[in-house]
Amino acid sequence: MYAKKGVSMSGNSIGVLFKVTTWGESHGPAIGAVVEGCPAGIDIVEDDIQKVLDRRKPGMIASSSPRKEEDAVRILSGTFLGKTTGTPISLIIENKNVDSGAYEDIKDIFRPGHGDFTYFKKYGIRDYRGGGRASARETAARVAAGAIAGKVISPEGMEVVAYTKALGGIVISCDRISREDIAASHMMCPDPEATGAMEAKLEEARRSGDSLGGIVEIIVRGCPPGLGEPVFDKMDADLAKALMGIGAVKGVEIGAGFGVAEMTGSQANDPITPTGFLSNHAGGILAGITTGQDIIIRVACKPIASIAKVQKTIDVHGNPVEVSIKGRHDVAVIPRIVPVCEAMVSIVLADHLLRQKAII
Amino acid sequence: MYAKKGVSMSGNSIGVLFKVTTWGESHGPAIGAVVEGCPAGIDIVEDDIQKVLDRRKPGMIASSSPRKEEDAVRILSGTFLGKTTGTPISLIIENKNVDSGAYEDIKDIFRPGHGDFTYFKKYGIRDYRGGGRASARETAARVAAGAIAGKVISPEGMEVVAYTKALGGIVISCDRISREDIAASHMMCPDPEATGAMEAKLEEARRSGDSLGGIVEIIVRGCPPGLGEPVFDKMDADLAKALMGIGAVKGVEIGAGFGVAEMTGSQANDPITPTGFLSNHAGGILAGITTGQDIIIRVACKPIASIAKVQKTIDVHGNPVEVSIKGRHDVAVIPRIVPVCEAMVSIVLADHLLRQKAII
Amino acid sequence: MYAKKGVSMSGNSIGVLFKVTTWGESHGPAIGAVVEGCPAGIDIVEDDIQKVLDRRKPGMIASSSPRKEEDAVRILSGTFLGKTTGTPISLIIENKNVDSGAYEDIKDIFRPGHGDFTYFKKYGIRDYRGGGRASARETAARVAAGAIAGKVISPEGMEVVAYTKALGGIVISCDRISREDIAASHMMCPDPEATGAMEAKLEEARRSGDSLGGIVEIIVRGCPPGLGEPVFDKMDADLAKALMGIGAVKGVEIGAGFGVAEMTGSQANDPITPTGFLSNHAGGILAGITTGQDIIIRVACKPIASIAKVQKTIDVHGNPVEVSIKGRHDVAVIPRIVPVCEAMVSIVLADHLLRQKAII
Amino acid sequence: MYAKKGVSMSGNSIGVLFKVTTWGESHGPAIGAVVEGCPAGIDIVEDDIQKVLDRRKPGMIASSSPRKEEDAVRILSGTFLGKTTGTPISLIIENKNVDSGAYEDIKDIFRPGHGDFTYFKKYGIRDYRGGGRASARETAARVAAGAIAGKVISPEGMEVVAYTKALGGIVISCDRISREDIAASHMMCPDPEATGAMEAKLEEARRSGDSLGGIVEIIVRGCPPGLGEPVFDKMDADLAKALMGIGAVKGVEIGAGFGVAEMTGSQANDPITPTGFLSNHAGGILAGITTGQDIIIRVACKPIASIAKVQKTIDVHGNPVEVSIKGRHDVAVIPRIVPVCEAMVSIVLADHLLRQKAII
Repeated sequence: MYAKKGVSMSGNSIGVLFKVTTWGESHGPAIGAVVEGCPAGIDIVEDDIQKVLDRRKPGMIASSSPRKEEDAVRILSGTFLGKTTGTPISLIIENKNVDSGAYEDIKDIFRPGHGDFTYFKKYGIRDYRGGGRASARETAARVAAGAIAGKVISPEGMEVVAYTKALGGIVISCDRISREDIAASHMMCPDPEATGAMEAKLEEARRSGDSLGGIVEIIVRGCPPGLGEPVFDKMDADLAKALMGIGAVKGVEIGAGFGVAEMTGSQANDPITPTGFLSNHAGGILAGITTGQDIIIRVACKPIASIAKVQKTIDVHGNPVEVSIKGRHDVAVIPRIVPVCEAMVSIVLADHLLRQKAII
Repeated sequence: MYAKKGVSMSGNSIGVLFKVTTWGESHGPAIGAVVEGCPAGIDIVEDDIQKVLDRRKPGMIASSSPRKEEDAVRILSGTFLGKTTGTPISLIIENKNVDSGAYEDIKDIFRPGHGDFTYFKKYGIRDYRGGGRASARETAARVAAGAIAGKVISPEGMEVVAYTKALGGIVISCDRISREDIAASHMMCPDPEATGAMEAKLEEARRSGDSLGGIVEIIVRGCPPGLGEPVFDKMDADLAKALMGIGAVKGVEIGAGFGVAEMTGSQANDPITPTGFLSNHAGGILAGITTGQDIIIRVACKPIASIAKVQKTIDVHGNPVEVSIKGRHDVAVIPRIVPVCEAMVSIVLADHLLRQKAII
Repeated sequence: MYAKKGVSMSGNSIGVLFKVTTWGESHGPAIGAVVEGCPAGIDIVEDDIQKVLDRRKPGMIASSSPRKEEDAVRILSGTFLGKTTGTPISLIIENKNVDSGAYEDIKDIFRPGHGDFTYFKKYGIRDYRGGGRASARETAARVAAGAIAGKVISPEGMEVVAYTKALGGIVISCDRISREDIAASHMMCPDPEATGAMEAKLEEARRSGDSLGGIVEIIVRGCPPGLGEPVFDKMDADLAKALMGIGAVKGVEIGAGFGVAEMTGSQANDPITPTGFLSNHAGGILAGITTGQDIIIRVACKPIASIAKVQKTIDVHGNPVEVSIKGRHDVAVIPRIVPVCEAMVSIVLADHLLRQKAII
Repeated sequence: MYAKKGVSMSGNSIGVLFKVTTWGESHGPAIGAVVEGCPAGIDIVEDDIQKVLDRRKPGMIASSSPRKEEDAVRILSGTFLGKTTGTPISLIIENKNVDSGAYEDIKDIFRPGHGDFTYFKKYGIRDYRGGGRASARETAARVAAGAIAGKVISPEGMEVVAYTKALGGIVISCDRISREDIAASHMMCPDPEATGAMEAKLEEARRSGDSLGGIVEIIVRGCPPGLGEPVFDKMDADLAKALMGIGAVKGVEIGAGFGVAEMTGSQANDPITPTGFLSNHAGGILAGITTGQDIIIRVACKPIASIAKVQKTIDVHGNPVEVSIKGRHDVAVIPRIVPVCEAMVSIVLADHLLRQKAII
């Protein structure tokens, strides 16, 4: 065992000036977030947050988890008469409709692809119900916090749009991404044809007791030039951290991303003209600082780890066991991860916007 | 102009307990790093750091920058009689052999692919000599600091090995990566055949006044399970930030990385047996915490932005100009970026190792 | 007005590894704290926290606020089956029995000695009900968090004891401070005679519509040597910050404190012998690091700012007004501030204990 | 021994946005500071810093240390053509004229009142030459960094003035403190009569092989209202930390300070009128936020611990020894600590000024 008595943890906050701290386990009484650094005087009521949170709701489509999460968010502090006061905004979402019984069977088993094994190695103890702190449910708190970040960046003209770029091997290529087209798709994919194919793929995976991975692209429009700090807190570095910190994400790329490995300098460099850049391989970020172009980010999402198919694993005593995971699970983190990506990017932008404003 | 008087910046530190702060510009008097949180009682002398730093030395091969950086590191504090005392270790590398004259021609020009444009937008002022703070030269300070991080993690059995996985479209696939094979290659590529092909590609690019991109893979061996903090400070999140914070990096992936997008859950999940995991698509990290397997990371490196080929750009007044960048430049950040990647990973590991040790 | 739209704030967290974030306003739905970094495996249930919180309860004595705060704390995350899991512990205390109506009269008035004026200048908006975020009520969240800190430090043999050293000019001098004697006093003063005199003084102040200041002394017993970080994060520096951050505190001193100004070196230095130090003018801290002796700290508490006596002030429009503050107010922050001081000291000790444990 | 192998440390930085990190030991090659977050475009050259640093120079008066510290500061990064660029400013002061031989005699002895004992307990190793990291010499780096902070706050109209309020029991009371009167006094005491008496006291202490304590008062003029963050990062809390973090300081008080303990609310509250506050018992800070009045702070300084008088102590093996400390030592930290206090306050103000500017 690595831990002596048990190891502490302090990695639940993100941001320097606009700071978000989340707390809560999947099957505890509630989850929540504390948002610090939100400027005073911004109009914000629970309904503003609820609308954003509802985009993450499960059960929206056939392929997602039938667990009926109500996810009603409450604001417990930091606003007064509908406006922010500059003090920390405490958000809470009660965990209703939880059924922990399903987890009794697997409480001594390390599910493959999950944090069961690593949490146990780290802490020597774990809340096995629904993944505990490692549950995707924790991201609801991020989405709620991200809604507040959105209120900070939108007056500056910034808009964050994420969509499903690939699912189960079906990849789309779109010239113009619109919020409307994304909203019209159960897959949050602006291509209607691909949407249908993705749904079919998902249904097929569900029937075979399996799950699917995919790619989400996030576009930031209207970002002013000059955001991001050189060296370690580069804009792309902070975006990479924020997005890689989502459970299912295994890769992050900016602009041309891994494609740059096969480009030459004359191909990769974006020429500059008096009317703007001629291309955007940089993805809107040069030397860690925004150029004023769209910021383009893609993240690779692994397939949901909970599958019905039989898998080899061990129990906490080290004995080999076979496990088939029942219960209410999505078949892909897409599309529910899409608003989570938007939230994380919004939080990073709000923080860097405030950092950039610290001028004399 | 975005800035009023000029904007402040505080993003030069990385790490919570093992903390590295770098400072310095390419053509100033010196660059350096302050390393805080290094435990007391570790044997360390200048030569230990110099050896690591020498791996980053230019001029090692035909294709790299002919600027003769001596890069002699000095320890100014934090050690006594050859041992660390627990106090901050100040490292300094003087900038010798600098020729700023070459930059007078381009001081009013925003070089494509460089931070010239964004620094100007952010600060309203910039040290145009050699890229100033955005110069790759800053990474020498990281490598020096990383050498100290190496001293912290190696007694725990950890080893960080990075190598050139791809350059200019030549990709290698190796079963067993050894330090010796990497050291034997001018390209830091363990495959001798590929090394030759890469060198030819580089020479060809140089002749055509162009540059090349590539991929570096970093492997961490011997990492104990349990490192990394859930939620925002996940091990993979912190690694992604540390690596994306290197100037040339446009993408970071862990384990199967972007490949997971096309996998099913039954393919992606790594089965667990009493004798260990049967595969390593997770890249040694589950739910942000290390599993005890090798940590596998790949980063995409863009081609060097400074090319002799004529490019379109503008000057600080917004007028269109054409620029051909002369001077002493590498043709690819590979192989010199390889030890930088090792350094950044070592720093993250040292920090998380100390965080994990904070037990009662 | 200083603020443009309204200014952000991020100062609600304290600690590096053991980190406490509080949120909430006096008359909002609830107040609370998120405690990060608490090691896993510690036995803790709501009742453990409630007991500590009850020591801060008003209405315990005649002179304290008749507002009946129930202050029932709930744990919303971070424990499982009665043990900490290493994940953030979210604590919530609902605001019951609030009567905001009393504040309608003074909503446009800056009460002397309160944060009304400064919050307005900072944010341009404020929650005027009961002091909002600046209310002493916020300290209930600190006391709850401090109860958890106590669970972290007590297994190491540390005990934090605070008591009333002075109130309204009555100063005690005690050789041996015991928890029992403190608990036996309504004033949290281990001297029974002084307790009576203090109560009389308080009653007299109440009748004249006035309030009283005092001094709290905090003693830490059983602290191991070696805690505290040199230079800026010295143990005494962090204690000073934590205690000066309590609303009513205007001074902090360690050991001989301000008395050192009139001492010579031969008087102030504590001689060391094989069996220990011969005196403790240093208050248990040398060069910012604990010596192993008792840590001795005293804080000066200003009189409660809300008094019935008529005072001069202005309203938000700058007009002169006279104000007499009615409502349910204490006459002194003593004794209710005593457990708050204990909490803040416990939090600092827990953090430095964990920082000290980060060894290899 | 508390430490296992040796304990790490990360407490060498102060500030969130305007961040200062110091490094260096008394008898190492150099000491220095890295200043992050200084806005771009500020005129600053070495001479600006040197002038401030010279105020801390020893040997200015008979009673201070005859060690001739040259303390020539160099700027190694962060400025270009005489202006700040927004990148970290690295400052270095070489340690010249060091004579470590004098310390060989006491290398195994824990000097009373010094950090020798506690550093050894913390780290298991220490640089015994001249106090190492715990030496007052480290404060030269703070003064240099403070000079830059001064450049950030002075355009906003802020001025920080510190002076000797008491030394060896001689206390002054001045109505109007002027920089000129302070500069005219070898004691940095604006009262000429008291200056003479203090000098006599110092000379007397020197002859008897002893040392003296005193009080420094710091006044901030022209501070705008609204600086400081509620709850933990209150302006007074951060000032208390910054000042208590100076080695010799054992107490910090704001405004009426410990005097509030004997005041009533009607005495302590500062009435507000349309033309301003009628008194300043709050010391310019209400609820942790500046009021716009002068900020008034006093710190208690202990006598220099190094005295010629024979003292009891032990060696590293626990044996009792007697020690008489020879060498070049001041008799009081006053007046050399005065500019150090100004520096620490300036750093805190610069940080909070930038934090306050982070608006949208």
